[in-house]
Amino acid sequence: MIKASVIGATGYVGAELARLLHGHPGVEIVSLSSKNYAGQKFGELYPGHPCGSFVLDTIDIPNIAQKSDVVFTALPHGASCETVIELDKFDIRIIDMSGDFRYDDINIYEKWYGVEHKSEKLLKEAVYGLSELYREQIAGAKITANPGCYTTCAILSLYPLLENNLIEIGSIVIDAKSGVTGAGRGLSEAVHFCEVDESFKAYKVTGHRHTSEIEQELGKAANEDIIVDFTPHLLPIKRGILETIYAKHKSGVTDEEIASAYAKYSSEPFVTVLEKGKMPEIKSVTGSNSVICGYTINKRTNSLIVVSVIDNLIKGAGGQAVQNMNIMFGLDESAGLCAGAWYL
Amino acid sequence: MIKASVIGATGYVGAELARLLHGHPGVEIVSLSSKNYAGQKFGELYPGHPCGSFVLDTIDIPNIAQKSDVVFTALPHGASCETVIELDKFDIRIIDMSGDFRYDDINIYEKWYGVEHKSEKLLKEAVYGLSELYREQIAGAKITANPGCYTTCAILSLYPLLENNLIEIGSIVIDAKSGVTGAGRGLSEAVHFCEVDESFKAYKVTGHRHTSEIEQELGKAANEDIIVDFTPHLLPIKRGILETIYAKHKSGVTDEEIASAYAKYSSEPFVTVLEKGKMPEIKSVTGSNSVICGYTINKRTNSLIVVSVIDNLIKGAGGQAVQNMNIMFGLDESAGLCAGAWYL
Amino acid sequence: MIKASVIGATGYVGAELARLLHGHPGVEIVSLSSKNYAGQKFGELYPGHPCGSFVLDTIDIPNIAQKSDVVFTALPHGASCETVIELDKFDIRIIDMSGDFRYDDINIYEKWYGVEHKSEKLLKEAVYGLSELYREQIAGAKITANPGCYTTCAILSLYPLLENNLIEIGSIVIDAKSGVTGAGRGLSEAVHFCEVDESFKAYKVTGHRHTSEIEQELGKAANEDIIVDFTPHLLPIKRGILETIYAKHKSGVTDEEIASAYAKYSSEPFVTVLEKGKMPEIKSVTGSNSVICGYTINKRTNSLIVVSVIDNLIKGAGGQAVQNMNIMFGLDESAGLCAGAWYL
Amino acid sequence: MIKASVIGATGYVGAELARLLHGHPGVEIVSLSSKNYAGQKFGELYPGHPCGSFVLDTIDIPNIAQKSDVVFTALPHGASCETVIELDKFDIRIIDMSGDFRYDDINIYEKWYGVEHKSEKLLKEAVYGLSELYREQIAGAKITANPGCYTTCAILSLYPLLENNLIEIGSIVIDAKSGVTGAGRGLSEAVHFCEVDESFKAYKVTGHRHTSEIEQELGKAANEDIIVDFTPHLLPIKRGILETIYAKHKSGVTDEEIASAYAKYSSEPFVTVLEKGKMPEIKSVTGSNSVICGYTINKRTNSLIVVSVIDNLIKGAGGQAVQNMNIMFGLDESAGLCAGAWYL
Repeated sequence: MIKASVIGATGYVGAELARLLHGHPGVEIVSLSSKNYAGQKFGELYPGHPCGSFVLDTIDIPNIAQKSDVVFTALPHGASCETVIELDKFDIRIIDMSGDFRYDDINIYEKWYGVEHKSEKLLKEAVYGLSELYREQIAGAKITANPGCYTTCAILSLYPLLENNLIEIGSIVIDAKSGVTGAGRGLSEAVHFCEVDESFKAYKVTGHRHTSEIEQELGKAANEDIIVDFTPHLLPIKRGILETIYAKHKSGVTDEEIASAYAKYSSEPFVTVLEKGKMPEIKSVTGSNSVICGYTINKRTNSLIVVSVIDNLIKGAGGQAVQNMNIMFGLDESAGLCAGAWYL
Repeated sequence: MIKASVIGATGYVGAELARLLHGHPGVEIVSLSSKNYAGQKFGELYPGHPCGSFVLDTIDIPNIAQKSDVVFTALPHGASCETVIELDKFDIRIIDMSGDFRYDDINIYEKWYGVEHKSEKLLKEAVYGLSELYREQIAGAKITANPGCYTTCAILSLYPLLENNLIEIGSIVIDAKSGVTGAGRGLSEAVHFCEVDESFKAYKVTGHRHTSEIEQELGKAANEDIIVDFTPHLLPIKRGILETIYAKHKSGVTDEEIASAYAKYSSEPFVTVLEKGKMPEIKSVTGSNSVICGYTINKRTNSLIVVSVIDNLIKGAGGQAVQNMNIMFGLDESAGLCAGAWYL
Repeated sequence: MIKASVIGATGYVGAELARLLHGHPGVEIVSLSSKNYAGQKFGELYPGHPCGSFVLDTIDIPNIAQKSDVVFTALPHGASCETVIELDKFDIRIIDMSGDFRYDDINIYEKWYGVEHKSEKLLKEAVYGLSELYREQIAGAKITANPGCYTTCAILSLYPLLENNLIEIGSIVIDAKSGVTGAGRGLSEAVHFCEVDESFKAYKVTGHRHTSEIEQELGKAANEDIIVDFTPHLLPIKRGILETIYAKHKSGVTDEEIASAYAKYSSEPFVTVLEKGKMPEIKSVTGSNSVICGYTINKRTNSLIVVSVIDNLIKGAGGQAVQNMNIMFGLDESAGLCAGAWYL
Repeated sequence: MIKASVIGATGYVGAELARLLHGHPGVEIVSLSSKNYAGQKFGELYPGHPCGSFVLDTIDIPNIAQKSDVVFTALPHGASCETVIELDKFDIRIIDMSGDFRYDDINIYEKWYGVEHKSEKLLKEAVYGLSELYREQIAGAKITANPGCYTTCAILSLYPLLENNLIEIGSIVIDAKSGVTGAGRGLSEAVHFCEVDESFKAYKVTGHRHTSEIEQELGKAANEDIIVDFTPHLLPIKRGILETIYAKHKSGVTDEEIASAYAKYSSEPFVTVLEKGKMPEIKSVTGSNSVICGYTINKRTNSLIVVSVIDNLIKGAGGQAVQNMNIMFGLDESAGLCAGAWYL
């Protein structure tokens, strides 16, 4: 059994990760820790949660590290970096859920996050944990930087198209919509039920940090710099992301070329590409680690339109973290991730 | 592996049952059948559902029975009765989700359902499948009549109080609230999103069929006839039931006596009774087979107030059906039912 | 034109009151004031609100009083009391939205609110503003204590039944459900979208302050002390209250007697009593100042069941305050309150 | 008083139009008619609606026309056309809510609607009722073709930019999200509460009819043919549209030029353009006839991003119809449309 710990277990990402780890047949949770709730039972915050009987640990890093094979850090950026630096001193594997280790270029990180990075060395060593793209590197990583939620959905949707040179790189628009768990458990007027319910809004237009993470990875696919329009919106639901992606296709691109590009995912356990013209809904992935992509071509505008969905807390956070753990420890990549969508 | 079939798999109860059976380590689903959708893939109706790749069978009873160890019937009442009569000719176990086999007295059934019952013999043979109360009889049953959703929640809440003579039998009020999946997948104005969203209503006041089922079982607990006020309401959510139950307690009843009555459930895997004064929420059971009960005493009015929650599709339908199957086949009663609440 | 001011205009009750006053043909709003947001435009907090262009005043009582004919105080209890004491020094009319002036007996107030009352004199002078019951006294009041939301719905539903001696006074159960605006604009985990959405809970079981207000008024109807079971619940919607009320009817009570008791409201502009057996929904009052009551008799249990709905922000707060202002200033009682339900 | 009738009053558009007309100080409703519900009270379908006491008429066109100054047709396309042809024989004004009279080119209509148009003559005579753009023509129109909901939002957002040659015409992407009332009152699985709630989807990708209406009007603004990518999505809310619009701006375009283009609306009562960088939310227009537009420039991609919101039932349907009626009858254009957003 892999001994796993979650630091920062009481946020929404940490709590969902703990739920998935609890259901994993090859994992024993050895510590759930929290800065603010140490000493309380997890079930006081999350009644009915399968980890309800756990008593939350303080964030005592040596203590946690010594009893763990793998530690997941589900902390705000910055705090996560400092914690990972400490954890790295131990002979354990680390999966970080923050943005702190996702970047190739420290300057990009510092520009978009507005803070200094405390360890360029570890930033270089960490592997970007988009499981479908970096499986081999993840297998050997000491530190895996789990990708952002919006970014997972966008990158998987666009990577094959760019890799195969099927779309115009200056024309990409990513219109993204997320449920409220994506905003986290912290309190603000923006998450008051009465402010969210029966409404809808765009936020951080042109300035969301995930833009830079998407651009980094798409740039690798295209083998040249990519800049995108990325607009996040807040849906009045708890879970789920749907992204509607627009790009002009290259002249003469055929349906077969697109289908062939997406065939890259044909043996992936968690990626489904629908036949041309069929589009997915969020409820088809709620509760599962799946990505579902639909696409069509607008013959009138020469646009390729891709609609993709994930559960932001699973494939967009805790589920992909478990998938990466499976890869890092040589388990079946689907272990603990077999639940389909709840649908209802 | 137990070979299991679901007849009427495309309704909400059938679909959720199929999801749970799919995740059960000791079950192989051999047939999902449907009157209206035979020949279609299950995933066309429920994209992302773990049973998505199943092709729906026609409801050919001999064919289904011959390949099954257990058949679940998730059909409207009446249709269910006819199907069970046919299934009973085969050497299989049957778990019926309708109201057709839940009654001790055929007259009560016919009065509340307004139809003639087609087999008093099987009605007598069938066992009422409230797992916590009738475990031994269920173990040996050929036909288990899975209880109603409202009724499961009400009976488990009140049984220990009546069994121990702690409340006045003429004073029971059950104010019940359910999510919309309880109304099923059929179309009507009453389930149009715009009619349900941001609203709330009572329905079938004084006339809901589950009243009679509740009264039958509570009568056994009290050893005398019980009549209750039962009012169902429709919540603008998908899943979950919360019942607020009021009864005058007998004079002189102590907290200890109540706690002692509820200790009946202390070793039950799926029933939690909170300490006096703590009350559960629906989200603490959404996705799980659990029942959570809270209670308090109003010293000013001499009322005992119980608040209980279940997931109507799980403990109120598919989950209890799986629990009953586990009992009937000698499996661990919790097999396939280990998921805690999703919470988020 | 009546010159009206709202002190505490940025809470949900204040904001809705301001919206209604803005649409009132006989009112000019002269001040919207706020402790925390003075100097900001109202529209920064409530974009699109008809009062969006108002700049919020500081709570300078002499200044506000001198320019007003009527001042509405929409403040937390305690703060409201202190403000009303100051306002009372001016020759203006005051409508207080808090619980501070609703009680006949200072001891009841202090027991249920847990604070000392600062002016028994004004408490005695203030008139309880349930418009349909105290129209004459309100007309002459200097201070009107606007009733609570739950209480308005409960009292109007039960008053005629008690006044006419139709129900057993020891048997009253009020099971109340409210939208989240009832919890106010303040931040807490309890109003985080992800904690409310797709869930439902009871809260303050046996201990909600409105219990005492309901009992005070029902006692007057019955001419003897009344104690009730009152349980509030939180609905995952923004607006609206539905109360399901149970009481044993007196022996021999006829349908005609009940209808006759409710005929008390036959000329009321804002109270509709449906014919026996028909039940209202919340959406039928959302956006309007109406109360709709339905009732039926359970012949099996001898219970009378009443289901009543109001919009908690209108008839339960701002709308009734405007209705009271209309009464106090001799206007048509419906002035500014003609909007029907939005329905959609 | 203008005597107004609504044919097809029981659909969501008709019902909301009736609500607005009922609150209009210069209008008397003389007939609400329905194909399916004639003879029933409007309040049986819409309890609490201000028109609840109206008895629904049969659709007897001469009878309706003879007592009306203006008739609103809120029928499905095709049926609307036939009705308008009959109404046109009378000396009345007609405001049609369907797509039947919105097109300059009958071929475009027939291509996108897939049916033959029954009166090219009336199609030519009818005026496109986008109030802000065609005020003068509407004033004199016998038949006003009320615009579509998505189209109103898109055209008002883009018209000034195209008119002033500020954006690249081949680069326009309109990502539109609508509440469920936009889908109408008809029953289908797609509007079942359990299919919509907690989910989100795109629909009719590349094929929605409003595309052609948007292109027609934007083409006039640009003085050349315009083709756009338009993708509608279904939000789990009742009311409201938000459109996120992307276009590459022309080289060298300045903030001042954009602000200057939008100054076109500076004296419009129902259009607000926020200062650069501020973005609107749906709740800021729910219940009002307003359009609110926000915009920003993405300097990295040279995209201009516009986010606009309307209430689909008001500015997107009934409200704009009333605005057009006001124009046609020489009333204050805002008469009956003064309600701000409900916000809560």
